Amino acid sequence: MKIAVDAMGGDYAPAVIIDGSVQAAKEGVPIVLVGIKDEVEYHLSKFQTRGLPITIRHASEVVGMEESPVTAVRKKKDSSLRVCFDLVKNHEAGAVVSAGNSGAAMAAGMLVLKRLEGVERPAITVCWPTIKDGMVAILDVGGNVDCKPIHLAHFAIMGDVYAKYVMGKDNPKIALLSNGEEEGKGNELTRLTHELLKRSSLNYAGYIEGKEVFKGEIDVVVTDGFVGNVALKFGEGLVEAMVAMLKKNMQESLMAKLGYLLARGAFAKFKKKLDYAEYGGAPLLGIDGICIISHGSSSAKAIKNAIFRANEFIKCGVTAHMNEELEKNKDLAIVSERQTG
Amino acid sequence: MKIAVDAMGGDYAPAVIIDGSVQAAKEGVPIVLVGIKDEVEYHLSKFQTRGLPITIRHASEVVGMEESPVTAVRKKKDSSLRVCFDLVKNHEAGAVVSAGNSGAAMAAGMLVLKRLEGVERPAITVCWPTIKDGMVAILDVGGNVDCKPIHLAHFAIMGDVYAKYVMGKDNPKIALLSNGEEEGKGNELTRLTHELLKRSSLNYAGYIEGKEVFKGEIDVVVTDGFVGNVALKFGEGLVEAMVAMLKKNMQESLMAKLGYLLARGAFAKFKKKLDYAEYGGAPLLGIDGICIISHGSSSAKAIKNAIFRANEFIKCGVTAHMNEELEKNKDLAIVSERQTG
Repeated sequence: MKIAVDAMGGDYAPAVIIDGSVQAAKEGVPIVLVGIKDEVEYHLSKFQTRGLPITIRHASEVVGMEESPVTAVRKKKDSSLRVCFDLVKNHEAGAVVSAGNSGAAMAAGMLVLKRLEGVERPAITVCWPTIKDGMVAILDVGGNVDCKPIHLAHFAIMGDVYAKYVMGKDNPKIALLSNGEEEGKGNELTRLTHELLKRSSLNYAGYIEGKEVFKGEIDVVVTDGFVGNVALKFGEGLVEAMVAMLKKNMQESLMAKLGYLLARGAFAKFKKKLDYAEYGGAPLLGIDGICIISHGSSSAKAIKNAIFRANEFIKCGVTAHMNEELEKNKDLAIVSERQTG
Repeated sequence: MKIAVDAMGGDYAPAVIIDGSVQAAKEGVPIVLVGIKDEVEYHLSKFQTRGLPITIRHASEVVGMEESPVTAVRKKKDSSLRVCFDLVKNHEAGAVVSAGNSGAAMAAGMLVLKRLEGVERPAITVCWPTIKDGMVAILDVGGNVDCKPIHLAHFAIMGDVYAKYVMGKDNPKIALLSNGEEEGKGNELTRLTHELLKRSSLNYAGYIEGKEVFKGEIDVVVTDGFVGNVALKFGEGLVEAMVAMLKKNMQESLMAKLGYLLARGAFAKFKKKLDYAEYGGAPLLGIDGICIISHGSSSAKAIKNAIFRANEFIKCGVTAHMNEELEKNKDLAIVSERQTG
């Protein structure tokens, strides 16, 4: 199946998007670039593409980064983003990759592809490296700011399937992000969600503190989109600040400078480990189809990796597995209704 | 005024607590060590304390780290923690320093000293370094998991006073932690709080994203205790993981190893900047008195710095300034009631 790439979405679109797409196509992944035809053709002409599995699909409109997601998706029916989702709906493509307006990608996913049976809120998932050389998936990190317990329970189920079939984890351990590990901790939302997850089919390990997330003991960390987004960005900001302070300290003496030069490789390796680009974007889980949302400032390499990631999703049939797992846990919705009266 | 130090609270109590107290007393800060007399005397006898302003106050009970805060404070009337607060209430001491059960410290503060007029929830405040070589105060980071908008508005007012009189900032900039900076972002709690803060007397700068916290543009970041605690611990865990990964990378080649050795000083300096111990604990704001809560695993140096911090609080009359600022903004409570119907 082809991957529909939103050629117009992202801070450096379409140049960087097309560069990444060409790189992925060179490794055999079929691509359909969606966007303003002239622009796409112009940028594509800079590459050697003879024989590569790349086609172009014209779309006359573009959704801006600051546009209101729902309005943009409803009004701009011929936007590159929306046309990507139409292609998946019509089985002309197997997945969408976009580095554009992430809210609009979520809105288009819900509007065009619809949600999976029983899911009220799709979630955006990111992966972070752990000290055990593995990865931990965290969701939701941005879509849903005011969540109900059943939404978080669905995030847990979707995260479980993702960890099993895409990350390749056997019986993944799922935990709920909280301000402490004891039962008495948490807020109203986590306490009610905790009750639901204890009754689920998942390998649920209870609460996890923020400090434990990177230790590699847990595979999937579940939280609402407000907390997830704040924690994630807080973490990103802290890493940036740390690296800046450390480098500054290393410029302050000749010895430290020399030390930095010698240890540069270690820094580079470390940076690579944390680098967004390596992981290729954040899957949008819970819609009836596949969509990988890339960072607005994605490099060509990040786009290439996002395309590879989308291709893996197609191959392992994530959507079908999601449906099975949701079906297995459908009683949670009834329990949840009883909780809230 | 003396500082009442909870000699029995903390992972390494009483040895480390007494060590830190002796260090502070050597610099002229008068201390009353509260705890089981025999134990305190035994540990104190290891130091040269002749002429130092240190006294002991016997308290027969100890609050454990895992005890339920409210129950422990109510039942253990002769616990070292509670007696510390009694001393402040009876004007025998000017402030409490404790590295024990932080929930119990908050409960004792509310029960014994009471809250400031109009304040429903006291807040725990921490300071983090910024890339501009300054500090940012973040509150609440642990006390209050389910907050109302008026609670957050009070945190902002208390943070403002703290920044002005303890951190020495002129006209501190206050922001509300959110998942984006645009007005349309945030959850229900932040949106209602945003409306309150716009009407306050504060220098309110609107929403701040997690990523911007460490850039040094904002002096006080306000959030509820659940989000604050999760983000803070997420950040701490990430820093630990980063340093571990970076050091590991630096052990992988001879060149990198040598580089690490040369740059060691820069690492140490950086660690010092982030070190809890340097900042001496987290003030509990909103009670009618002064209390500094230290990390359970505090070193003697951390305790010494917490005592210095408590002393600064006494000198600059923070409590009186809090009352003034709360009075100035008392209409916010009326607006808040109107919001919620």
